[in-house]
Amino acid sequence: MSDIKKVVLAYSGGLDTSVILKWLQDTYQCEVVTFTADIGQGEEVEPARKKAVALGIKQENIFIDDLREEFVRDFVFPMFRANAIYEGEYLLGTSIARPLIAKRQIEIANQTGADAVSHGATGKGNDQVRFELGYYALKPDVKVIAPWREWDLLSREKLLAYAEKNGIDITKKKSGGSPYSMDANLLHISYEGTVLENPAAEPEEDMWLWTVSPENAPDQAEYVELEYKNGDIVAINGVALSPAQVLTELNRLGGKHGIGRLDIVENRYVGMKSRGCYETPGGTIMMKAHRAIESITLDREVAHLKDELIAKYASLIYNGYWWAPERKMMQSMIDASQATVNGWVRLKLYKGNVIVVGRDSKTDSLFDPNIATFDEDFGAYNHADAAGFIRLNSLRMRIAAKLYNK
Amino acid sequence: MSDIKKVVLAYSGGLDTSVILKWLQDTYQCEVVTFTADIGQGEEVEPARKKAVALGIKQENIFIDDLREEFVRDFVFPMFRANAIYEGEYLLGTSIARPLIAKRQIEIANQTGADAVSHGATGKGNDQVRFELGYYALKPDVKVIAPWREWDLLSREKLLAYAEKNGIDITKKKSGGSPYSMDANLLHISYEGTVLENPAAEPEEDMWLWTVSPENAPDQAEYVELEYKNGDIVAINGVALSPAQVLTELNRLGGKHGIGRLDIVENRYVGMKSRGCYETPGGTIMMKAHRAIESITLDREVAHLKDELIAKYASLIYNGYWWAPERKMMQSMIDASQATVNGWVRLKLYKGNVIVVGRDSKTDSLFDPNIATFDEDFGAYNHADAAGFIRLNSLRMRIAAKLYNK
Amino acid sequence: MSDIKKVVLAYSGGLDTSVILKWLQDTYQCEVVTFTADIGQGEEVEPARKKAVALGIKQENIFIDDLREEFVRDFVFPMFRANAIYEGEYLLGTSIARPLIAKRQIEIANQTGADAVSHGATGKGNDQVRFELGYYALKPDVKVIAPWREWDLLSREKLLAYAEKNGIDITKKKSGGSPYSMDANLLHISYEGTVLENPAAEPEEDMWLWTVSPENAPDQAEYVELEYKNGDIVAINGVALSPAQVLTELNRLGGKHGIGRLDIVENRYVGMKSRGCYETPGGTIMMKAHRAIESITLDREVAHLKDELIAKYASLIYNGYWWAPERKMMQSMIDASQATVNGWVRLKLYKGNVIVVGRDSKTDSLFDPNIATFDEDFGAYNHADAAGFIRLNSLRMRIAAKLYNK
Amino acid sequence: MSDIKKVVLAYSGGLDTSVILKWLQDTYQCEVVTFTADIGQGEEVEPARKKAVALGIKQENIFIDDLREEFVRDFVFPMFRANAIYEGEYLLGTSIARPLIAKRQIEIANQTGADAVSHGATGKGNDQVRFELGYYALKPDVKVIAPWREWDLLSREKLLAYAEKNGIDITKKKSGGSPYSMDANLLHISYEGTVLENPAAEPEEDMWLWTVSPENAPDQAEYVELEYKNGDIVAINGVALSPAQVLTELNRLGGKHGIGRLDIVENRYVGMKSRGCYETPGGTIMMKAHRAIESITLDREVAHLKDELIAKYASLIYNGYWWAPERKMMQSMIDASQATVNGWVRLKLYKGNVIVVGRDSKTDSLFDPNIATFDEDFGAYNHADAAGFIRLNSLRMRIAAKLYNK
Repeated sequence: MSDIKKVVLAYSGGLDTSVILKWLQDTYQCEVVTFTADIGQGEEVEPARKKAVALGIKQENIFIDDLREEFVRDFVFPMFRANAIYEGEYLLGTSIARPLIAKRQIEIANQTGADAVSHGATGKGNDQVRFELGYYALKPDVKVIAPWREWDLLSREKLLAYAEKNGIDITKKKSGGSPYSMDANLLHISYEGTVLENPAAEPEEDMWLWTVSPENAPDQAEYVELEYKNGDIVAINGVALSPAQVLTELNRLGGKHGIGRLDIVENRYVGMKSRGCYETPGGTIMMKAHRAIESITLDREVAHLKDELIAKYASLIYNGYWWAPERKMMQSMIDASQATVNGWVRLKLYKGNVIVVGRDSKTDSLFDPNIATFDEDFGAYNHADAAGFIRLNSLRMRIAAKLYNK
Repeated sequence: MSDIKKVVLAYSGGLDTSVILKWLQDTYQCEVVTFTADIGQGEEVEPARKKAVALGIKQENIFIDDLREEFVRDFVFPMFRANAIYEGEYLLGTSIARPLIAKRQIEIANQTGADAVSHGATGKGNDQVRFELGYYALKPDVKVIAPWREWDLLSREKLLAYAEKNGIDITKKKSGGSPYSMDANLLHISYEGTVLENPAAEPEEDMWLWTVSPENAPDQAEYVELEYKNGDIVAINGVALSPAQVLTELNRLGGKHGIGRLDIVENRYVGMKSRGCYETPGGTIMMKAHRAIESITLDREVAHLKDELIAKYASLIYNGYWWAPERKMMQSMIDASQATVNGWVRLKLYKGNVIVVGRDSKTDSLFDPNIATFDEDFGAYNHADAAGFIRLNSLRMRIAAKLYNK
Repeated sequence: MSDIKKVVLAYSGGLDTSVILKWLQDTYQCEVVTFTADIGQGEEVEPARKKAVALGIKQENIFIDDLREEFVRDFVFPMFRANAIYEGEYLLGTSIARPLIAKRQIEIANQTGADAVSHGATGKGNDQVRFELGYYALKPDVKVIAPWREWDLLSREKLLAYAEKNGIDITKKKSGGSPYSMDANLLHISYEGTVLENPAAEPEEDMWLWTVSPENAPDQAEYVELEYKNGDIVAINGVALSPAQVLTELNRLGGKHGIGRLDIVENRYVGMKSRGCYETPGGTIMMKAHRAIESITLDREVAHLKDELIAKYASLIYNGYWWAPERKMMQSMIDASQATVNGWVRLKLYKGNVIVVGRDSKTDSLFDPNIATFDEDFGAYNHADAAGFIRLNSLRMRIAAKLYNK
Repeated sequence: MSDIKKVVLAYSGGLDTSVILKWLQDTYQCEVVTFTADIGQGEEVEPARKKAVALGIKQENIFIDDLREEFVRDFVFPMFRANAIYEGEYLLGTSIARPLIAKRQIEIANQTGADAVSHGATGKGNDQVRFELGYYALKPDVKVIAPWREWDLLSREKLLAYAEKNGIDITKKKSGGSPYSMDANLLHISYEGTVLENPAAEPEEDMWLWTVSPENAPDQAEYVELEYKNGDIVAINGVALSPAQVLTELNRLGGKHGIGRLDIVENRYVGMKSRGCYETPGGTIMMKAHRAIESITLDREVAHLKDELIAKYASLIYNGYWWAPERKMMQSMIDASQATVNGWVRLKLYKGNVIVVGRDSKTDSLFDPNIATFDEDFGAYNHADAAGFIRLNSLRMRIAAKLYNK
């Protein structure tokens, strides 16, 4: 007997979370509410309903949501406004999905009167932190059950045995399946574990699922034009699209042209280094294009201030602090900077390359090709000004040099 | 008659600086010392001697130096230790060469008793600032002559007329030559001006001189292994090389595989936006590889602190503050961080892509694949620790949520 | 004959700007519009009208405004929300007034169809930069006349001679007056020049005008209670006050108790070090109190993020970038952080000391004295959590130590 | 029976750590090594020896060290070079002593072959983190025993009962003693707990032990002159002193003149806000004086870079990361900046005020009172330069204003 009455589980319908579902029922003797979200992971979510029912979940306790638009509009796009990149390489594909899952779980907990939430993340990774910081920030007295930190099913064999004993379908897992630990959503798919744990070794080509290799990409480059409004892409090749449609289409283009593979060793928030491989086809295109549109529409010092804060902002998201006040405070500044980020960027996609070949803004371009003419007409530039500019910028160094050259 | 007695001119031997040489003699009635450096721009420097002599320069006033090793060892490599990148894109190829030229000019001024220095940079660009901040920092009372800010030869026609009148060879220039304003050294070649002044338009393929296009690069990928010592590359594919040899070889490899083209709009220090195209084949490889070796050998917080300072450090170099005390102060910190950056990185080069396929360090790898085993042996990781870690990291948010959820 | 038609002069009515007024008329043969503002400098502004008329200014070209409320509400208060302090000491009293003067001058220029503006700041100081960056940011094609950089009246004698010749009243100046260069507004009064140019020497007691010395302050301490709303003081000792009234009252209290004197060597934007003495009685109280109210109402990481940005924000204001987009962008973040900064602070004022003796917030206090009780009731704190927190925070260091202790 | 064989306890000789000593023996059946340090807390350390012996500790297991010089030289002084201040107020007095205790404990553990260390810090505070991060960083496989997180002696009554039962002297504690939780070392003394847990209330005057109140301080001001070498004080009023002597003398002076009291609410690393009162008489003087000597000897941008990093550096120390690589990396930069920080500062101490009344440096002053003369002689300053400086610094804003004013 426990003091948990009702728990909302982030439920994928797969083996692991099905075992967790059963284990929660057995261990806590509590009512379980399942929550399954389509965030673009590329698998059907409806089958999760039947599996939940089979495990004894009541219809009113089964929640299945399509969150793709919300995911891109309220999470992915705001993050890309910041040009967020973790440790110079990682586009935060897994990190950015967790806060949305956490938020929706808490909403369901509040709606169903649940006092606990649970997830299937392990005890060594970042995701447990991201889920739970979200839970606590949004519902501070919620009880959190992290089975991987509590139970003794720590080997694959024990897990399968438990599943079999409890009538959970394990056919796919028995016959093999991917050897990697994977996570997918509309922004990316990730791979960890097994052979990747040797960072000296190249991953096998058949690991990658979303992109062709640059070698196998078309020999013909493809041009694409993105239209920006307030820092977000609103149209591709002249066709207005919703946020999720934008990312879906860019994933298609990137995947086709071998764009967005990444193989890194990263520093986890819990303190260890970890090797991960990622495919972020659409995100890789967005990152390059966003910098290009900003390059003609943002003031220099605004852009530099953003650049100075990227590492911190990215760490906040990586570490799970999406719902923290400092992330929101930084976002308010970043969003304010995007008011002028309007215009278009033209890209050439070719065998892994995203090449900017043009950018312009009718309303907000700060680039003036006629700066010379500009000068003569309005006195905006005077060559002689540079001498004073340099002399005063060097004054402190001249004074020091005079002292020390003595 | 002027108060200038002797001036050291950064002299390339080309048309523009030859005109400047003559103009200095005429305008200031002063002795001119020419300084011509080989920093890997890919042109012979000895011919400059004959041209200088032809313009009446005395043998003892002609200085021609091969600075390639010093350039890479003392300027390029230290900068790459910092992963310096300007505005998220530019590898600072022009910026990093100027401080060396300035330093050598001042040395020659001191040696020859010159009271002035001169350069051929225009009044609208960054280079005038970079040269002159260096001059003033190293010799605070030096007189600086910047002909492009002083004379009236502001059109190409006037310049050619002046040259012709003074017997300066203009054959190459008359018959055409590149329409772009270019700068080259062992790290990169840059293109500005003319058709590039429309940032909406793609540059012509035949502009690029150092790299083949990705389309024309070999269909076969090539693997290369780089060995690092204290953050610098000391060997390629097992062959020990000097700094300049390293960069020369990486330029060859990058150029062959279509690596390192960049087309951006950047913010100049003097306040305008400018469109530039760059080829940095070796540098692009070095940037990717350096992050990879750091990923397994640097502590997380050391790496993050470096990341937070990159934008500022890169701006310092871009703006010409190499010789400023704050750049040196940052460098001392960056260099200190590189003591553990030892090991190797393996890369795959293919049609514009630099793909990390392996990294390791016998002496300094902080990556431990057996962190699990590690745990059991030494108690380094305990799943239960994560619960406390998360709960305390969320405490401030829980307290706030309790207050505001009331 | 010049190309200037009408110029708006920042006119104090004093000797210097009266000479400038006359000099502008003579030199540019242009119409002069005078603008005189009451920003709390403690001198009557109406007398400036008569002087302007005496110098031939038309009634419709004389602008006299009381800007005290706008100054405190829109400039001083926003700056104090950021806890802005320059070089760890200076509360930016002069810096923060210049953007308002510049803005109003440009408004008047637009209203009167003037094509130029002028000010009385010298060519070596910060104020010329602050004025002119404001002018250019708000009216990019305005012509700027800085007499001190242009004319030859560079000695006091020449200035007085010019004044006398032109019938400008110099009685006060002839008979002495303060030997210091001073600037005053509702936030502070500053002293520079003459004997202060020796930073080894203590200023004379009779230099200080706004505060008694700590020695001469009352022997009896005085308590004062400040009420905050969204980071701004809205009441003192229970009496609701307007922004300018708040600052006026705090100046009275601070001045009475010997609070707010400062004697520093600072780094000017133009590159030299300069010695300045300042009295900022009310501001010194506000700075201490604002940190105190933030200490119980701001989230830790929000407060730390603000702290990391203070130096940059303060430099922007010091250097004259109030109207720049990066300052506005930072302000949007700072202002967003102040939504919870509500409550009161009690201070004890005594002989130069501002001592916080209490602070509380009914609505937004994140301080919970019953965190222990809190724990037991809600599980917010569990002593055992700390072990996991520490162990994971140390993991990266343990891994490194294991490697290097071998 | 436990797996702990020998534990090094940070032992003050007081009631709490005596109980811990006994509890360790009982609970772990292990050998206990006591370590007692004189870091200037103002209590005799030798009496701890007798108490340890009385509790059965062998002579060779009793370590008593005078660490005062090491504490100031290697910890306090390096921190003050950085002008470190936490949350704008706190001079880190407790924080900076913990890393030294931890280091010495680990040295003793290595010397005596101990496998564990223990301390008397509670489970809610910062000190447990500071001790243990030090332990783990220096000896990664050490076992850490934190009795306050493990035992059930959580009330004062239980603790006293346990002591009485085990023959530990409790006379002082029974009869009263200070109601505050205190910590002292040569840098400061701190007070927490009981009535201080109401941040709205002023602390009682008799709480403060090291300083007189400003009211009770002498009516006569006192002048003191500090001499700096490489950023550290090496002499007071012309008398050369060792680091610990410097701090001792400044504590005497500050205490006499009512200097260095602080009453704040701070944010603990473990996530809660806490009210603390501190007396840091010497440190408060040092902070003010160090900024003053830096003001004439540091380059502007070096000073500003330091200012931008203070908050981060101070947080590292506050949170216990003294031994972390990122703190060491920052220190290398800070120390490098202090090479020119040589000269003297004269202060006036009066009733709580530390007033800088003079500063100079024979060797490194960058302040030039004759900058005007300087100008004429060497051309270091030209009023006309300012116009160009301002015009180019405003160019980006002028371009934007032209676009948006249309």
